[in-house]
Amino acid sequence: MEEVKEFENIKEFLLQVIEDYKKNENFDFHPYDLAEHLLKLRDSNYDEYEYVCKKIPSELFAEILCEMPTYVQEEIPTVISSKKIANITSKMDSDDASELIYNISQKNEEKAQNILSKLDDEDQLVIQKLNSYEENQAGSYMQSELFSVYLYEKIDVALKRLKKLKEEDVLDNVFHAYVVGKKGRYIGSIGLEELIVFDRGLTFNDIPKDKIKTYSCSHFSDISEVAELVTNYNLSAIAIIDKDKLVGRITHDDIHDVIQEQNTKQLYSLAGVNDDAEQEESMYRIGKNRAFWLGINLITAILASIVIGLFDATIQSLVALAVLMPIVASMGGNAGTQTLTVTVRQMALGDISYTDAKRTIKKEVVISLFNGFLFAFVIGVIAFIWFKLPLLGVVIALSMVINLFSAGFFGAVIPILLEKFEIDPAIGSTVILTTVTDIVGFFSFLGLATIILL
Amino acid sequence: MEEVKEFENIKEFLLQVIEDYKKNENFDFHPYDLAEHLLKLRDSNYDEYEYVCKKIPSELFAEILCEMPTYVQEEIPTVISSKKIANITSKMDSDDASELIYNISQKNEEKAQNILSKLDDEDQLVIQKLNSYEENQAGSYMQSELFSVYLYEKIDVALKRLKKLKEEDVLDNVFHAYVVGKKGRYIGSIGLEELIVFDRGLTFNDIPKDKIKTYSCSHFSDISEVAELVTNYNLSAIAIIDKDKLVGRITHDDIHDVIQEQNTKQLYSLAGVNDDAEQEESMYRIGKNRAFWLGINLITAILASIVIGLFDATIQSLVALAVLMPIVASMGGNAGTQTLTVTVRQMALGDISYTDAKRTIKKEVVISLFNGFLFAFVIGVIAFIWFKLPLLGVVIALSMVINLFSAGFFGAVIPILLEKFEIDPAIGSTVILTTVTDIVGFFSFLGLATIILL
Repeated sequence: MEEVKEFENIKEFLLQVIEDYKKNENFDFHPYDLAEHLLKLRDSNYDEYEYVCKKIPSELFAEILCEMPTYVQEEIPTVISSKKIANITSKMDSDDASELIYNISQKNEEKAQNILSKLDDEDQLVIQKLNSYEENQAGSYMQSELFSVYLYEKIDVALKRLKKLKEEDVLDNVFHAYVVGKKGRYIGSIGLEELIVFDRGLTFNDIPKDKIKTYSCSHFSDISEVAELVTNYNLSAIAIIDKDKLVGRITHDDIHDVIQEQNTKQLYSLAGVNDDAEQEESMYRIGKNRAFWLGINLITAILASIVIGLFDATIQSLVALAVLMPIVASMGGNAGTQTLTVTVRQMALGDISYTDAKRTIKKEVVISLFNGFLFAFVIGVIAFIWFKLPLLGVVIALSMVINLFSAGFFGAVIPILLEKFEIDPAIGSTVILTTVTDIVGFFSFLGLATIILL
Repeated sequence: MEEVKEFENIKEFLLQVIEDYKKNENFDFHPYDLAEHLLKLRDSNYDEYEYVCKKIPSELFAEILCEMPTYVQEEIPTVISSKKIANITSKMDSDDASELIYNISQKNEEKAQNILSKLDDEDQLVIQKLNSYEENQAGSYMQSELFSVYLYEKIDVALKRLKKLKEEDVLDNVFHAYVVGKKGRYIGSIGLEELIVFDRGLTFNDIPKDKIKTYSCSHFSDISEVAELVTNYNLSAIAIIDKDKLVGRITHDDIHDVIQEQNTKQLYSLAGVNDDAEQEESMYRIGKNRAFWLGINLITAILASIVIGLFDATIQSLVALAVLMPIVASMGGNAGTQTLTVTVRQMALGDISYTDAKRTIKKEVVISLFNGFLFAFVIGVIAFIWFKLPLLGVVIALSMVINLFSAGFFGAVIPILLEKFEIDPAIGSTVILTTVTDIVGFFSFLGLATIILL
């Protein structure tokens, strides 16, 4: 992105790019980079951003807008006219177009309908169809643009059609020819790398069956299952079917986005953050959502405090306990988080499943106990030296073993159980776990102190 | 994977699959699924696993072994003979072959050399070349198998060569023809979807320049930069060059693996877990590595304890402080983790950078203060009701605001600063942050109590 430097500012640079595009002169910018520049301009000078947006030709804008985040798509009706948005939408692939209309409708349903009504009937139908799927269904991710060929068609005839589609620029990322039979029945796909070497006089029916791959997913499939299939089998694209009829395809770059979203969701969930809310521009909404998880954390912290309150007399008679007690809870919380994170991740990657539960729990308990004994010794010696009380060292050592054992056990059990009950193990695991390690930590330490020291 | 059920066990099933494969009869299994079955067998009955491994033909094993985790590749010399491993290696793509040899060498360097020596000279050279790259360099991920064409060659001649390569099964996932000039100089790539519609009598030089994409990365590029380029531009594969010479390519499925590894690393680092160590089979090594981070956590927990120790007289005179003090620290830790996780993730996704630092910090501070005031009110009222001490409510409320403010501030600043000093912000951020929130939490609460309540 060095190109900007020679221009006074991003605005001038983008206007020059637009001129080049119109003249089709030296135009070798990727829409992703232009989207990045435009976003920078939007952040630094909104008026200039609006000005530039109005100048971008629809065809180029269609490519740029696909690369823009949700919140920019949502607000685009405040920047350019409905007519232009309709024009832009008509130049997009169906999956991008339906996403744009969906995003606009989230802010302003009426405006979205208005834009939709300006499209031709066929585009309207496709977008309405794609937006009728649930958010997690394969159908809402697919594009209807694909290279389909008829089983008894000559390869030559099909390739001439492809040529025309490419010339009209309506088809991108063509990895396969999708072979269909009568009434659009999906038969299978053949990679272009296979197809390209066949005699063009043959029909698709003449191609050996082992070259035709039958992978497909239902339009109602959960997108995470589709993502798993595509990544496990290293596919470039997958056919989406409605019963036995071919209705669309999902390409690897869309699957990549799905996977990155899943990763963000997992990471955020473990930290008590909602990934959808974080994408909002409104700090109030982000804050409100984080407050929800902080509220739950407050309840669990109060539970831990109640446990401490049970032993107020013990603490009164030996304040050293108050000084040391956060150590046991903190070590338990950390060891538990280690176990929990590894378990959640390995379940998500498919490395472990409910059937391996016993083995996973055993492994985690052994590791935690190993570290429990190690740190029991260390902290026992430290407490003894610090407070000159040998028995205090014994108490904290014992409670360290107990708490790290329970950290390992519950760190593995909680996500496995949530998964079994079909609850996302990333959501809520952390808060349940720290409740356990706090309560076990304080209870074991102060309880043992009451028995042994008083 | 239902197919197994009709067989008595996995072993019988796999042996049948092998028979079918040899007879080339109804063979439509994906190597990924066979690898999964084989892993299951390995876990349940190692002897049967070894027995089956010895029966798998080399060509099929080459495909299966690519799908197996590192630890299985490492131990494979204990399961099958060096000669067979050499045979399997020779059937693999160069990137998979070099990875296998590398993994074996990690356990047994001599064995790896022995296997390598059994390969033909060309394979040996390629594998040695790929394994000479650093782990993070593009070169160590590339495969040398690709469809390269000469600029002045006729398309027809090139396609005949492709046909032969496909028949010999040495080339997979061909998305592009890579056009080279004299002395292997890389000119650009043309997608098969473009190429397939051109007249086969033309040469590659006759193809319009805008169809030839010049994207490429140096073999010394950091793999994370390559991954960024491929995903931002939605590429299927990228050319890897040594100066101006084409030396290999990296395909989208390999990039997918890189990204998943990065995601795992990020998630694990935030939880104080090392991703490489977790892949070990030895529980001792996993435990040792986790102990490292627990040890650092112990030090920070002791620091927090020392802070508490400064106020032992205050606690002695009001034990309610010991009961309530974990609440402030816990809320600070949680709010800070929310901020930290969002900041680390958005930096990794490229959504924010050092130049946005001010804006990010401001946003996070505002959100934290919003929640700070909210929960200050809630906990203030609870503490007042619980202990019937209005001033105790004031103390905890004030310290909640202070601690949530510092949680938001440091949760954003720490990863941004680490990134600036080119330290991975995911590693170590959490432990620095919780040290801050613990110390600020205990110090502000107990300090304010000493001033206001005594």
